[in-house]
Amino acid sequence: MNYEFPKAGKDLETIMEEIGSAEEMNLNFSSGNVFGSMCTRPLNIAKEVYTRFLESNLGNPGLYPGTVRLEKEVHEAIGSLIHAGDIESHSVGGGTEGNIMALWRAREKSGNKKVLLPKSAHFSFKKACSLLDMTEEYLPLTDRYQTDIGALEDKLDEETAAVVGIAGTTELGVIDPIEKMAEISGDIHFHVDAAFGGMVIPFMDEDMPSFDFQIQGVDTLIVDPHKMGMSPVPLGLFYSKSKDSISVDSPYLSGEKQKSLRGTRASASIPAFWATINLLGKEGYKDVIDECMENTSYLVSRMEEKGFELIIEPSMNIASFRCETPKNIVEDMKEKGWNISRTINPLGLRFVVMPHVSKQSIDEMVEVLDEIR
Amino acid sequence: MNYEFPKAGKDLETIMEEIGSAEEMNLNFSSGNVFGSMCTRPLNIAKEVYTRFLESNLGNPGLYPGTVRLEKEVHEAIGSLIHAGDIESHSVGGGTEGNIMALWRAREKSGNKKVLLPKSAHFSFKKACSLLDMTEEYLPLTDRYQTDIGALEDKLDEETAAVVGIAGTTELGVIDPIEKMAEISGDIHFHVDAAFGGMVIPFMDEDMPSFDFQIQGVDTLIVDPHKMGMSPVPLGLFYSKSKDSISVDSPYLSGEKQKSLRGTRASASIPAFWATINLLGKEGYKDVIDECMENTSYLVSRMEEKGFELIIEPSMNIASFRCETPKNIVEDMKEKGWNISRTINPLGLRFVVMPHVSKQSIDEMVEVLDEIR
Repeated sequence: MNYEFPKAGKDLETIMEEIGSAEEMNLNFSSGNVFGSMCTRPLNIAKEVYTRFLESNLGNPGLYPGTVRLEKEVHEAIGSLIHAGDIESHSVGGGTEGNIMALWRAREKSGNKKVLLPKSAHFSFKKACSLLDMTEEYLPLTDRYQTDIGALEDKLDEETAAVVGIAGTTELGVIDPIEKMAEISGDIHFHVDAAFGGMVIPFMDEDMPSFDFQIQGVDTLIVDPHKMGMSPVPLGLFYSKSKDSISVDSPYLSGEKQKSLRGTRASASIPAFWATINLLGKEGYKDVIDECMENTSYLVSRMEEKGFELIIEPSMNIASFRCETPKNIVEDMKEKGWNISRTINPLGLRFVVMPHVSKQSIDEMVEVLDEIR
Repeated sequence: MNYEFPKAGKDLETIMEEIGSAEEMNLNFSSGNVFGSMCTRPLNIAKEVYTRFLESNLGNPGLYPGTVRLEKEVHEAIGSLIHAGDIESHSVGGGTEGNIMALWRAREKSGNKKVLLPKSAHFSFKKACSLLDMTEEYLPLTDRYQTDIGALEDKLDEETAAVVGIAGTTELGVIDPIEKMAEISGDIHFHVDAAFGGMVIPFMDEDMPSFDFQIQGVDTLIVDPHKMGMSPVPLGLFYSKSKDSISVDSPYLSGEKQKSLRGTRASASIPAFWATINLLGKEGYKDVIDECMENTSYLVSRMEEKGFELIIEPSMNIASFRCETPKNIVEDMKEKGWNISRTINPLGLRFVVMPHVSKQSIDEMVEVLDEIR
C-alpha cells in the first residue's frame, strides 16, 4: 500500500511523534558508532549559522549578497591553503560534482574523451564518464597503492582528455605522486581529487608531499569542506585554472550566468563553514587532525592486538585491514548498531577515524568486531 | 587582498557579529520584497525538522533508515498526486538535476543525441545538453506561448533522443499540450518538466489539462517540492518509467548503488517536506494555491491600473508584462531593495507570486515600480 498524500492536515503532535521515531532510527555521528562515513558532526556554531541561512540559494545570488560575500572569503581562505592564488572557483555539492566539472572542462577543451585514472579512483569518476560520454582507462597501482607512473607514461597519448590523481584515496587514504603525474601529463588536463585529503594534508605536522596548485601542472582540484572541514553537507570547493569554458545564461535570475552544475544551490553550508574556519583557525584544525591521527594509531594498535593486518600504514585518518569476507562482517556489525565500511582493492575492512570517533568508541567497536567475526 | 585562513580561532562574539552583518545584507522571503524567486519561505515546522536532520546524507543511506522511510513516503505521496503508481523515483537537487537525469536516460536508451524542446524551456536544458554532449533543437511557440505541435511533427525523426514538454514555463507559467506532445512522440523518450507546475496544478480548483503519468506516453517527470511545495532547498523529485539505466556501484558506502547524479546528498529537506505535507494536507495546499492565485489576480489588476500590459493571462501564479527595457528596471528596483525578474521571449517584467507575497507587498512594490520606470 502506498503512502497517500493526506487529505487534511494532521495535528502537530502526531507529526512530531513520527518525525521523532524516524530520527531515532538514524545513526548519528555523536553516538560514536559511525566508522564508515567521510562526513562528520558539524560544530554547534555551524548548526546555528546554518539554520539562520536556511533560505540561501546561490543559484539566485542577487538575493543573497551577504552569503556571496562569505562565499568569496571561504574560497579565498581555502584557496590560500592550497596555493590557488586568484584562479576561478565554485561552490559545488561535493566531490562527485567537482569531478564531473573537471572532466567536463577537459572534454570541452580537448575534444577528447579518454580519461586516465588510477584503479583507486572514487566511483564518481565512473558516473562522470557515463554522464559525459567519456571513457575511463584505469592505471594499475604500485605495491604502495599509488598510481603506477610507468603505466601513465605508456597510456598517455594525444587522445587523452584528462589525467586524474588522488590526494587521499577513498579506500586507503593514499596520496598519489601528484608532482610526477602532473609533469608527465604535460599539456593534458590534470585534475586532483583532494576531496578528503585537501582539508587534512595542509594541517599535518609532518612534511607531506605537494598535492595542490604549488605544482605547475595541476589544472583543477576539488576539496570537500563537508568531509574533514567539518562543514555541514553539502559543500565542495572546485578550483580551476582555466576560465569558465562552461556556462549558461540565466537571465531571469539575479545572476546572469551559471557556471556550475546545479541550478538551485542550497548555500547555508557556506556561512556555517565560514564560522567554523573562524572559530577554529589553523591551530584548531591542526588540533583536530592531530587527534584524528592519534586515534587512528590507537585503532591500528587495538586491531593488531586482535590479529588484524593493516593493508598499508595510514598516511591520513583512514585505516583498512585485510579481510576475506568484509561484506558479511559489515552486515553483522550493522545489526549490532555499528557502521563500518569495506574495501575492494584489496578486500578489507575500512575505518575512517573522523573527529566524532573517540578512543572509547574504538575500544567498544573493536570488542564487538572481535566477537562477531 | 585575499581573505586569509585565520591562524588562530577568533572569539564567538566577533564571529557572530560578522555573520549577523552578512545576514542583514541578504533579502529574505519574509520581507515580502522578493518577486523573482520560485522558492519560498518554509513553514516553521519545516525549519525545525530540517535542523534535527541536518546530518542526513542519503548518499550513505544505511546510516539513515529513518530518513529513508520518510523519503519513501514522500515519493509515494507526491507520486499519488501525479499518478506515478509504483515507478522508480529519486530525490534530486532540483529541476536542473532532474532534467539532466531525463536526458541522460534518453541518450543511454536510444543512442541518439538530438533533443527537441520548446523555446520556452528552462536554461538548464542547455546545461544538460552541453554536459551530455547532446544537441538542443528548439521548437517555436504558438501565440499562446505553447509548443507548436506542427513543428514537433516536422522535426521528430529517428535520430531524436528525447522530446521535452513543460508544465509551467519559467517565464510565463504556461502549460504545454502535454497529451498531444506525448502522442506525437510515440516511442521516443518524452520528459515533462513540471518543476514548478507539478506542485500547483494538482491543487487547482479549475479543470486543468493533464500533464503527468495519467498520460501513457510520459516517460520521465521532474517536480520540485522546493518551489511551490514550500520545502526548504534543495529538493526535487524525479520519476521515471524506465528502470535504472544508469547506476554505479558504491561498495564502500552503506548503499550498494548510486542511481542519481550526486554522491553526498544532503537530505534534511526530505523530513522537512514530509512534515509540511502532513501539516497542510491537500486542503492546506489548496488554500495556499488559492491565495497565490488571488494575489496574482490582484497584482495583475494593480499593474494594469498603472498601464502595464499582460503578456498572457496567467494560468498559474506567474504574471509577466510587456516591457522594452526590463534589465534596467530590474536593476533600478534592486537598488530600491526589491527583487523582481524579467523575461526574454518576449521582453518583459516577471513576477512570481509565491506564498510569501502579500497584497500589501504587491501594493508597495507597484508604487515603487511606477515611480522608477
